Amino acid sequence: MPNSALLTDLYQLTMLQAYCDQGMEDIAVFEFFVRKLPENRGYLVAAGLAQVLTYLEQLRFSAAEIDWLAGSGRFKPAMLDRLAALKFTGDVHAMPEGTVFFRDEPILRITAPLPEAQLIESRIINLLHFQTLVASKAARSVLIAPDKLLVDFGMRRAHGSEAALLAARASYLAGFTGSATVAAGMDFGIPLFGTMAHSFIQAHSCESQAFIRFAEANPDNVVFLIDTYDTEAGAQKVVDSAATLYAQGIKIKGVRLDSGDLAEHARKVRTILDRGGLNHATIFASGSIDEYELEQLLAQQAPIDGFGIGTHMDTSADAPYLDCAYKLQEYAGIPRRKRSEGKATWPGRKQVYRNYDNGLMCGDTVTVDNAPCPGQPLLQLVMQRGKTAPGQPMLIEAREYAASQLNSLPRPLRQLSHTPEYPVIVSAELQALTKIVDEQRIFKV
Amino acid sequence: MPNSALLTDLYQLTMLQAYCDQGMEDIAVFEFFVRKLPENRGYLVAAGLAQVLTYLEQLRFSAAEIDWLAGSGRFKPAMLDRLAALKFTGDVHAMPEGTVFFRDEPILRITAPLPEAQLIESRIINLLHFQTLVASKAARSVLIAPDKLLVDFGMRRAHGSEAALLAARASYLAGFTGSATVAAGMDFGIPLFGTMAHSFIQAHSCESQAFIRFAEANPDNVVFLIDTYDTEAGAQKVVDSAATLYAQGIKIKGVRLDSGDLAEHARKVRTILDRGGLNHATIFASGSIDEYELEQLLAQQAPIDGFGIGTHMDTSADAPYLDCAYKLQEYAGIPRRKRSEGKATWPGRKQVYRNYDNGLMCGDTVTVDNAPCPGQPLLQLVMQRGKTAPGQPMLIEAREYAASQLNSLPRPLRQLSHTPEYPVIVSAELQALTKIVDEQRIFKV
Repeated sequence: MPNSALLTDLYQLTMLQAYCDQGMEDIAVFEFFVRKLPENRGYLVAAGLAQVLTYLEQLRFSAAEIDWLAGSGRFKPAMLDRLAALKFTGDVHAMPEGTVFFRDEPILRITAPLPEAQLIESRIINLLHFQTLVASKAARSVLIAPDKLLVDFGMRRAHGSEAALLAARASYLAGFTGSATVAAGMDFGIPLFGTMAHSFIQAHSCESQAFIRFAEANPDNVVFLIDTYDTEAGAQKVVDSAATLYAQGIKIKGVRLDSGDLAEHARKVRTILDRGGLNHATIFASGSIDEYELEQLLAQQAPIDGFGIGTHMDTSADAPYLDCAYKLQEYAGIPRRKRSEGKATWPGRKQVYRNYDNGLMCGDTVTVDNAPCPGQPLLQLVMQRGKTAPGQPMLIEAREYAASQLNSLPRPLRQLSHTPEYPVIVSAELQALTKIVDEQRIFKV
Repeated sequence: MPNSALLTDLYQLTMLQAYCDQGMEDIAVFEFFVRKLPENRGYLVAAGLAQVLTYLEQLRFSAAEIDWLAGSGRFKPAMLDRLAALKFTGDVHAMPEGTVFFRDEPILRITAPLPEAQLIESRIINLLHFQTLVASKAARSVLIAPDKLLVDFGMRRAHGSEAALLAARASYLAGFTGSATVAAGMDFGIPLFGTMAHSFIQAHSCESQAFIRFAEANPDNVVFLIDTYDTEAGAQKVVDSAATLYAQGIKIKGVRLDSGDLAEHARKVRTILDRGGLNHATIFASGSIDEYELEQLLAQQAPIDGFGIGTHMDTSADAPYLDCAYKLQEYAGIPRRKRSEGKATWPGRKQVYRNYDNGLMCGDTVTVDNAPCPGQPLLQLVMQRGKTAPGQPMLIEAREYAASQLNSLPRPLRQLSHTPEYPVIVSAELQALTKIVDEQRIFKV
């Protein structure tokens, strides 16, 4: 990940100039949370923490960046010296990646000297927002089709290369089988899937020849794309090529459909393959598929074994952003609160407790950190004085944890739309603290 | 930009294995185009070409990448050698960045040996799709509010850091005044804007003190955020602090509103500022603004001088992706065509011609390259044999060109919704070529 310290908003630096002038270096506590779930989201899946920890550990201004800032004429020499020496020295508490969470629940808390905690706001939101967005979207397909092969196909229409890589990671975390994005295989160890495009078929003078040449080149990965000209005719050519390939010891693993009425084509193709003795060959489908389409295909009992899910997931097309924020909750030991219309926050350091009933989540409480509360506390210390705590989960472990979290979701929350609201209680202690903060008139004016 | 050659889909590499086995190194022609404009888009603005050219010039597999591919066990040694030596040696024709275009019009054409032209598909789409998406979204705000200061505020909810940087670039190209993203200032020379967040106000024991401290630290950039507790009370504090600051030679440039009914607050705040003698101070607004909200605020004659436009633009929230493709149109001198249901393409190398009436665009023709056609040809040679052609426009020049293109848009196309369809004609020559390709049965079967 590119992690320039300049991946921030200008106002962080103009504020730092004032903090620097005044020596405001006391400890600040910021929390990241989602204000409101998008329509058609009953829950969210926390993701992106691993990238946040790496970012914080690596946070430095390079000499070239300091020179460039100096050249802008906006900042004083003492401030530039402060930036040149800046490291992240704070603590981080967070919900582990894969944790299911709901509105108003902090999933990350930063405790650090004010300038450090301020500077990192933009990139922390940028990292947590996107992976949480995609993991939450991907989980919907995983819960709809738990027994299907689900592959991230979204690189091309993801918003840039980092989005492509992180969408591959977030969807794998949420339970996808793998991705088509090669760099995500190298960077994150995610299983890769992929065979051929229409251009491969078109570059050959006939479809059958293209199939055979592909199989000879990739004998362990023989999945043919059959809709370039006519899907059912393509399926028949697959059957016709099977004997030639079998003679070479090559087995056809499956076919891919990418256009038209996928359920109808899948049924016809299944019949053609079965009649041709290719009962073992699987059918994989792609092309503008999302969880809504997936639900329909499953309802129609389309004989499809796996799905490539791309654009809609990598852009979270039905909800392309979350209403999330990273807000100051305490400075110099005093709880703080923003009261802007429609955007007021709960003050102070908080913890979230979760209760279960028969293995299913049944209610959370957001309360003041260290207040007594029944349930399982969700925020854990993951970085101390700028060093990542040992024992952070590997991606594959986070994926298993996400699966167990999704398994604990009450059934109504799994619906793709019209989900009920999960009960999140603000504790009496937190409400009392809010009242105290509001009554300290010094913070009102 | 990170430009690893592994930023590609796995199927590109499995296809390359077959091309390599068969020595399929003839010249292929691929074109990038948008199949269909999203609802509520009457036109698109081409963007991302500069990053495509850099990507192609830098395209190499590193030794570590080749080792990793070898370790995957998927590829043969000769193929790995081919990849290790691979460079992009082809030609690129493209519409200049900032060109307005419509559906079915290629905006980029790649002419290169098949393996090269194939490998680059995923990243080329990834780069052109996103910047075109954002430039097209941003242009809508620019045309609605040509006289306002428009600033990209979207980094935090852009989909990753590359999206944040490229959204800053694409919106500036489309006519935005600048961005809040500092790295976009350093990387692209985009003017930067930004002052303070709510956390700055909250970290001080009173709002007035926060204002004065900020102004002292940033005397040339005094814009106060006034909605942390109560917008109108905040405006009054700005007025009250003016004399103190004026005595230090510091002038208040303006205020920012970030919540509530922006038009109503702006009117009240304008009155407070004017009564307080701050007639020169501007009002800047932010908070979930997009072009639809902008149109309403202007219709209400809200006294707002500038806008921070973030999430909705950087994610293109009302249309978070384009139905675009990069398709093989010719291989080894023979035009090719995909005929999948709903996704058929026009074959062969193409050119787009544009006609104007009284300085306004009045109709385009898509035709076979080098066929005679009236109008201005839009695709130009921008890279030859892997080298970028001299004289590529700087970002600021592309921005001026985009402005002139947007100026030439017929008025009905500028509407935010219910736009008519712009006339794009497929020439008789291209229709004839399509018929010929379809009749060559060899490409049907």
